[in-house]
Amino acid sequence: MAGRVLVVLCLSWLSQQVRAEEIKSPNRNLTLNFSLQAGGVPTYSLTYKGRPVIKPSHLGLELKNGQALTNGFAVTSSKTRAFDETWTPVWGETKTIRNHYNELTITLTQAATKRVMLVHFRVFDDGLGFRYDFPKQPELAYFVVKEERTQFALAGDHKAFWLPGDYDTQEYSTTTSKLSEVRGLMKTAVTPNASQTTFSPTGVQTPLMLKSQDGLYINLHEAALIDYSTMSLDLDDKNMVLESHLTPDAQGNKGYLQTPCLSPWRTIIVSDRAGDILESKLVLNLNEPTKYKDVSWIKPTKYVGVWWEMITGKSTWSYTNATNIKLDSTDYSKLKPNGTHGANTAHVKEYIDFAAQHHLDAVLVEGWNTGWEDWFGQSKDYVFDFVTPYPDFDVQELHRYAASKGVKIIMHHETSGSVRNYERHLDTAYKFMADNGYSAVKSGYVGNILPRGEHHYGQWLNNHYLYTITEAAKYKIMVNAHEAVRPTGLARTYPNLIGNEAARGTEYESFGGNNADHTTILPFTRLIGGPMDYTPGIFQTKISAYNPQNTSFVHSTLARQLALYVTMYSPLQMAADLPETYNKHLDAFQFIEDVAVDWDDSKVLEAEPGDYITIARKAKGKPNWFVGSTCDEQGRTSTINLGFLDPGKKYVATVYADAKDAHYEKNPQAYAIRKVSVTSKTKLTQYCAPGGGYAISLVPSAGK
Amino acid sequence: MAGRVLVVLCLSWLSQQVRAEEIKSPNRNLTLNFSLQAGGVPTYSLTYKGRPVIKPSHLGLELKNGQALTNGFAVTSSKTRAFDETWTPVWGETKTIRNHYNELTITLTQAATKRVMLVHFRVFDDGLGFRYDFPKQPELAYFVVKEERTQFALAGDHKAFWLPGDYDTQEYSTTTSKLSEVRGLMKTAVTPNASQTTFSPTGVQTPLMLKSQDGLYINLHEAALIDYSTMSLDLDDKNMVLESHLTPDAQGNKGYLQTPCLSPWRTIIVSDRAGDILESKLVLNLNEPTKYKDVSWIKPTKYVGVWWEMITGKSTWSYTNATNIKLDSTDYSKLKPNGTHGANTAHVKEYIDFAAQHHLDAVLVEGWNTGWEDWFGQSKDYVFDFVTPYPDFDVQELHRYAASKGVKIIMHHETSGSVRNYERHLDTAYKFMADNGYSAVKSGYVGNILPRGEHHYGQWLNNHYLYTITEAAKYKIMVNAHEAVRPTGLARTYPNLIGNEAARGTEYESFGGNNADHTTILPFTRLIGGPMDYTPGIFQTKISAYNPQNTSFVHSTLARQLALYVTMYSPLQMAADLPETYNKHLDAFQFIEDVAVDWDDSKVLEAEPGDYITIARKAKGKPNWFVGSTCDEQGRTSTINLGFLDPGKKYVATVYADAKDAHYEKNPQAYAIRKVSVTSKTKLTQYCAPGGGYAISLVPSAGK
Repeated sequence: MAGRVLVVLCLSWLSQQVRAEEIKSPNRNLTLNFSLQAGGVPTYSLTYKGRPVIKPSHLGLELKNGQALTNGFAVTSSKTRAFDETWTPVWGETKTIRNHYNELTITLTQAATKRVMLVHFRVFDDGLGFRYDFPKQPELAYFVVKEERTQFALAGDHKAFWLPGDYDTQEYSTTTSKLSEVRGLMKTAVTPNASQTTFSPTGVQTPLMLKSQDGLYINLHEAALIDYSTMSLDLDDKNMVLESHLTPDAQGNKGYLQTPCLSPWRTIIVSDRAGDILESKLVLNLNEPTKYKDVSWIKPTKYVGVWWEMITGKSTWSYTNATNIKLDSTDYSKLKPNGTHGANTAHVKEYIDFAAQHHLDAVLVEGWNTGWEDWFGQSKDYVFDFVTPYPDFDVQELHRYAASKGVKIIMHHETSGSVRNYERHLDTAYKFMADNGYSAVKSGYVGNILPRGEHHYGQWLNNHYLYTITEAAKYKIMVNAHEAVRPTGLARTYPNLIGNEAARGTEYESFGGNNADHTTILPFTRLIGGPMDYTPGIFQTKISAYNPQNTSFVHSTLARQLALYVTMYSPLQMAADLPETYNKHLDAFQFIEDVAVDWDDSKVLEAEPGDYITIARKAKGKPNWFVGSTCDEQGRTSTINLGFLDPGKKYVATVYADAKDAHYEKNPQAYAIRKVSVTSKTKLTQYCAPGGGYAISLVPSAGK
Repeated sequence: MAGRVLVVLCLSWLSQQVRAEEIKSPNRNLTLNFSLQAGGVPTYSLTYKGRPVIKPSHLGLELKNGQALTNGFAVTSSKTRAFDETWTPVWGETKTIRNHYNELTITLTQAATKRVMLVHFRVFDDGLGFRYDFPKQPELAYFVVKEERTQFALAGDHKAFWLPGDYDTQEYSTTTSKLSEVRGLMKTAVTPNASQTTFSPTGVQTPLMLKSQDGLYINLHEAALIDYSTMSLDLDDKNMVLESHLTPDAQGNKGYLQTPCLSPWRTIIVSDRAGDILESKLVLNLNEPTKYKDVSWIKPTKYVGVWWEMITGKSTWSYTNATNIKLDSTDYSKLKPNGTHGANTAHVKEYIDFAAQHHLDAVLVEGWNTGWEDWFGQSKDYVFDFVTPYPDFDVQELHRYAASKGVKIIMHHETSGSVRNYERHLDTAYKFMADNGYSAVKSGYVGNILPRGEHHYGQWLNNHYLYTITEAAKYKIMVNAHEAVRPTGLARTYPNLIGNEAARGTEYESFGGNNADHTTILPFTRLIGGPMDYTPGIFQTKISAYNPQNTSFVHSTLARQLALYVTMYSPLQMAADLPETYNKHLDAFQFIEDVAVDWDDSKVLEAEPGDYITIARKAKGKPNWFVGSTCDEQGRTSTINLGFLDPGKKYVATVYADAKDAHYEKNPQAYAIRKVSVTSKTKLTQYCAPGGGYAISLVPSAGK
């Protein structure tokens, strides 16, 4: 007994000694402070250039069984270290990435339970990352998380670019409001989706973009989300404190952990310049280097696809108009074709021809496999088998034909959320791909998850998504998962995760439309975690041109659609419109044909979330630069400096711009293309229409 | 409007016309009556020789959405047919099986919803089977079952042999009581289990064995449980009405169906002779013929195993005493062996030697693969990989050694209930088996199910169990699943389902003991659905002989252990005790060596549930007969007539019997073996000790 009291006193003494710890970013702009508050509550705060970013905020987790890991702690040790390394991504926005931070590791011991929890803080010039670390220890082996209690106490009622917190969908329009207005706007913000589960009148998703009244840009997200539930944030709108809210499983638990284990990193990117948020590599830096020895098979890809024609309603995924199909007892050769099936051999060849002609890498084909007649919303277990084509889709012939033209076909695996069924077929499906020349797959998770009661963003599904990626790697297959969890930089570790949707993509332009400012926000929110398969390039912005029943229109000018290939970074870029439309605008299409999908350098030239973004990027291994600019419904004039160009060179700039009278709704297809000679000293002024933008390709002049 | 009224009137008129339907069994002993009660409620009743078995009982289902399929019906057609066919099972108790019934099919139409539901009734000489049939129809494609509402209204307060209704375990001792006593005895009846979920103070499982006060034996169960949730029964103990209660999923739903589809058959076996219940093939007859073209690889098997030594605590499944193991980061070669690991190469070879010496087919080896250190009760996802042996288990060498001796090794796949993990590894694991000479697997589902919230007997798991069986068939692998759902005759269709546990097996003799009458009940309950891997043959009935800490004892005499090879029919029979023990009783072991595991004929000579069972069986393709007799704690004298023997032949009967002073607790190992010459005219009288029994092998005399 005496011994135990002594230990407690010792710990108490220690905690007095190291009660407050502080580290700074390499450039000393950021200061992270850690302390224990009364009752042994671990607490951190963050400042940027002396201004508060995060006020003292609690750390810890509640467990399903036993004492919470939120208080009763003493600091039993602390360590700091500096780290500076430059690494080369398999694909990316820049040729190399510098990973430079100062780290503080706090070891916390809970006297009452003898449990130990570490917190690692890494302070970069562009922000802070921290994570929980549960070492292997006798008193903590397996545990169930009731809730993570990580706070982000904000310094004011910031402007927020937010999506309703949801366990199953990210496909909401961004609402821009003060934090104090979230509660009042929530009902309007929650629009219908095939699978959705909101959890709080003040719950929001990450990446959450904030701007303080004094001009600080703050982004909250997470990095390296592995074998853990996805974090949303719940807002205490009296005190402006955001707190972690994890996605539960079917039984309401938030996570099943076994020591040794780590939480994902909680990330706070901060700057007084908006462009720094876009240029930040903090999330990637907090992920592990790639686990693959051979990455030669991972190739950035530009593609067209049999897709937009279905999205608009011009054609169908399904081969028949039958209903109530059972996959294992349906003989499609005996059913009457509906005549609207997009993925037929002849039609796919037209896409292959177009891709070959315009030097695109690949053709995505959706609706090629049996089961689409009633694939959706039926909680159907055996919904697809991923290997059986419809009678009018000739796998072998298309493989031969595409290969002869140097074009790849991209596989499509819609799971309808039935993930047991998908996992059962996964190996066979990937093998089928390898056997038939496919090296990339677009997967989909539309609708509620099976096993029923699990959510898209719970630990169970996060485990599944990563499983598909590592299994795909065995067959050298790249994965582009839609309706899966939002990325958290895992593509650094698993670079065959070549794309994700995880937000409201271009498809919604056919489902009622995206806000005109949508693409001025996404790079500040969704893209912080990784690239998005946004599928830009819609030239025919009136959907009724394809389907008279569909009154939606694309909330963008044609010129802005080109800009997105630069502003919406992705190693996987679709030219989403139909070849028949592109053939009417081949002058504009030239930009899509020319634009790179992998880069040696990137510069944010202008940026203000919700208003405009202008970015310049240098093509991988080439001297060419490309510029894209997107703006909101107001329109504006962009002024950029071409100082990023090689000082000694002359370039031909081809500018694809909105015409003077262009307007995203009233006159979206009014564009003008001009060529000008420029140098690194050129200052360029360019008008952007409401919902418009521009794109520029910059090629060194032949003469120089 | 007028048209609709007309339809309703027509249906109403029709329903008057065919309001009551009746069919009889081929032998006319059973009469099934179907009628619509007021409000269009489908109702059936059953009599046996004029005595009520099931009083008028309601039929139907409640759906999660929309009007219940329990009332508002009209009978729109009815059909009868007779069926008589004899088929040959791949393995079984008899060489051929006669499937002989009269069928009544009622088509019910629900005017308000235009939905159609059929009920098929098949009346056999030994009972009734009926099922719901939902044809493909516009108004009913996909539907979710809230509850099945099938009633079994009993004619009295019968004596019942019951287990507590549970979604996750069947490993309870049988309670024998009047139905009216169930409620009062429930608390005592529910003993602890690794995974258990009871649902009602009067909930019981099937197969439920009943005996009326006037001597009718009634058994309630189900047949052909495929893609549907397992049925328990909930008792209204005022009216003695049992009602179906399906196993829910994680969200509380009872089933997800798509038309066309069928419910399992609900079965009522009935006779005034107890032996008829044991001889009934009704459950098998209600299953479909085998789906396999080639069944040559399916072989009844007698085996020993590295198993009982772990069950008793003499040795361990695990190779080390480490805790908190992570499979993907543990290097077992660096851990200290615990010295108690059973499944080591040298020791397994001893079992192989014993099997070869005594002409047994196979050796089961549990604990051969990594992960056993903390496999259990942790809700652990990645718990086993099913292909990595412990360092002291040499797969190749044992394959070679076993093959050289003509012995098979039986694979063991414990899943710890983590079925996603199992399915992910299943194909690789089966391939590993095929590559290493294994042709049978014992699988296990100890503990709560992952995906969490699902139950052992829900539709999700039932689907899984069948998936493993059909996948195994692709590799010509036989499956013996423990802790899986109780069988419902599916082995007729999928005969590589060679065994199941699904009840309290011999292992419980080491966990406190089974009741002495246990094996006089199981053939009337658990075995009605199919064979059980009961693992008899324990000669050393004091567990302390193996593990001084373990005070349990086997509630059986040694002689009765031999009888179980006959009374507990299974094509898979273990000699569960240790070779070191068998070597001390080789005279008794001779019966185990001789007894068949596949049969041309079977006769129940004596039977009374809970008291005694005596069965004679003729070995497949041989003239030899074997007799087994088991009795309860009272002991008794059995008198049997050997009239089943070939009239023209003399036989040597080797009788393995309890000694006069034998007793299952006080003197279990006291047995006597005698040889006598017998013919078909011999009447044999044999004393059975309390908890005892006897076994006889009958071999035609060489001279005749």
